[in-house]
Amino acid sequence: MLSRFPRTGASTRRLTWEDRPVPAASTTDPAVHDSAFLRAARGEEVPHTPVWFMRQAGRSLPEYRKVRQGVAMLESCMRPDLVVEITMQPVRRYGVDAAIFFSDIVLPLKAVGVDLDIVPGVGPVVAKPVATLEDVAAIPDLTPGHVSFVTESVQRLVGELGATPLIGFAGAPFTVASYLVEGGPSKEHAKTKAMMFGAPDVWDALMRKIAGISAAYLQVQVDAGASAVQLFDSWAGAMAPADYRRYVMPYSSEVLAHAGTLGVPRIHFGVGTGELLGLMGEAGADVVGVDWRVPLDEGVRRVGGRVVQGNLDPSLVFAPTEVMLERAADVLERGRSAPGHIFNLGHGVMPSTDPDQLARLTDFVHEHSAR
Amino acid sequence: MLSRFPRTGASTRRLTWEDRPVPAASTTDPAVHDSAFLRAARGEEVPHTPVWFMRQAGRSLPEYRKVRQGVAMLESCMRPDLVVEITMQPVRRYGVDAAIFFSDIVLPLKAVGVDLDIVPGVGPVVAKPVATLEDVAAIPDLTPGHVSFVTESVQRLVGELGATPLIGFAGAPFTVASYLVEGGPSKEHAKTKAMMFGAPDVWDALMRKIAGISAAYLQVQVDAGASAVQLFDSWAGAMAPADYRRYVMPYSSEVLAHAGTLGVPRIHFGVGTGELLGLMGEAGADVVGVDWRVPLDEGVRRVGGRVVQGNLDPSLVFAPTEVMLERAADVLERGRSAPGHIFNLGHGVMPSTDPDQLARLTDFVHEHSAR
Repeated sequence: MLSRFPRTGASTRRLTWEDRPVPAASTTDPAVHDSAFLRAARGEEVPHTPVWFMRQAGRSLPEYRKVRQGVAMLESCMRPDLVVEITMQPVRRYGVDAAIFFSDIVLPLKAVGVDLDIVPGVGPVVAKPVATLEDVAAIPDLTPGHVSFVTESVQRLVGELGATPLIGFAGAPFTVASYLVEGGPSKEHAKTKAMMFGAPDVWDALMRKIAGISAAYLQVQVDAGASAVQLFDSWAGAMAPADYRRYVMPYSSEVLAHAGTLGVPRIHFGVGTGELLGLMGEAGADVVGVDWRVPLDEGVRRVGGRVVQGNLDPSLVFAPTEVMLERAADVLERGRSAPGHIFNLGHGVMPSTDPDQLARLTDFVHEHSAR
Repeated sequence: MLSRFPRTGASTRRLTWEDRPVPAASTTDPAVHDSAFLRAARGEEVPHTPVWFMRQAGRSLPEYRKVRQGVAMLESCMRPDLVVEITMQPVRRYGVDAAIFFSDIVLPLKAVGVDLDIVPGVGPVVAKPVATLEDVAAIPDLTPGHVSFVTESVQRLVGELGATPLIGFAGAPFTVASYLVEGGPSKEHAKTKAMMFGAPDVWDALMRKIAGISAAYLQVQVDAGASAVQLFDSWAGAMAPADYRRYVMPYSSEVLAHAGTLGVPRIHFGVGTGELLGLMGEAGADVVGVDWRVPLDEGVRRVGGRVVQGNLDPSLVFAPTEVMLERAADVLERGRSAPGHIFNLGHGVMPSTDPDQLARLTDFVHEHSAR
């Protein structure tokens, strides 16, 4: 299968899939295939517009804060009991149409041995930022053995989820590269862009390396039973379109092309990507996530015939309920021009969100869009 | 003159302009009027495309870091000797076509007595965030007496600048409001949007108050000799267009309308505003700043016949010089479709920028665009 993924194969170490576990997708409930979420993702007729929320599993939920007490972020991503519980929490509470695998963008790096940690209030901090070809070569490729806890978590999850699909999740090469090059979160990505513009050979090697890791990480999740994948390029919106096309898109395309061989719908999302929506679709997405800045019908126009996901401003949960729902109705209306629409916020759920508002929003989307 | 600015007049305290100093604009060199910068801002023929850089006076310059040693940010904005020196530094070094008055977005708040400070590495921190109508009413309106150091600084500056125009500067109501409501810098503006959506009366009062302060602050600068103004709405890009139109634009329009009565060109800029460019122009700008995410010719199309300013990615200074200049040539080419183009970066100069790159960029723009 990796022969369809030749550029990654050219990176310093080859993936070895011989030891990959037997796909557990057979444990997935057959009803998942006909779920509203997957039907919408394929552009098929749906009984109602499906809805889930980016970062639906997280700090906005009291039950999440409870199980996370005394457990560091990365540890919680590596313990199947916690991953299953945390991933299930919003499904139980809201009845959303999909679960998103609880993980972190930097987890695959941690799993292969990169020295990093997630510092509360800061974000991921990398002990030795990447600057040279040698630094890139020192990062191992990811094999299923690195993330056996992911395989176990996904297998248990699909058993618990029943007819609700599970979305696998990985960070896109640009966003992951920014953490590695900056050494932590960055507003301006100055070092990252300096490498991109000034050391294109190092940039290319790094992006190939991460593309291989992200692709392998998604495959582990799909092999274990995930029914769709979302490639998060959180910070792609920092790029001008010409630079995105040249320095970012080819590597995201590698990941999406590989995910395409796995037979699951591919969602592609970033924040502030109004000018990039067309390119993010062309990169190989079946579904393009649109943030709240772009009116959804305009987003539909820009992605040219693809399914869209989005895009209520996440801060509208702080509005009176009737204001929030009025705006949700507007999003649903604008989404009708697409071949398929998966309702979501235009970015992740904010930690200070009242879960009751998301419950009302979920119910409203289901009722208001019922065919 | 303020009778043309009725909504601000309705805020809790009226501005008193009786004590306003005699306009010092007569000390401005008459050649300023025919400078390339002002000609371009008016959409007239120019000998070359004018260029300046947002945050050209600042940490990227060793001479700036030297004079700022041991001097806190807000103190440096209140000492005319430092304001003059810092504002002049990039003009001397680069020969840019305009100076930008050295100040900070929160300075007028500090001047009227709001308890705030700029904390290094953090940004502005407000001691008591604004939440109620009473909090808004407690903020005094700005009179020239609050900012006599600004009048003195501008008067001295226009004397030193000769034929180079000085751009006055103020924060737009939304961005300033976000600091006041959040209590400091914010990525998501959650409290600000919660007030906007959930307490529209408080929001309206706050935005009117700030609009009055910003308008008065710009007038002080123009009265003392500034030849243009830039209204910075750094964070307007956080708003969906429909919300921008309803909750932000009316107040920015107030400020710009007042500046319009002063007879100087008005530049309006924010980051991540691709979807808002048309509205930001309609708000009353003569020149709309475009960030680097939107190709400049597309920006020209969106602002509909207005002059544009921008828009090289500020991180391109980290590229090899020839790569940076190639991209600058592309920006110049795309800018030709506008009635006027002021070359700039698409956001502020980053502190780690090599000043020699900006010197080369300035020279290149002048030579490459010479008619």
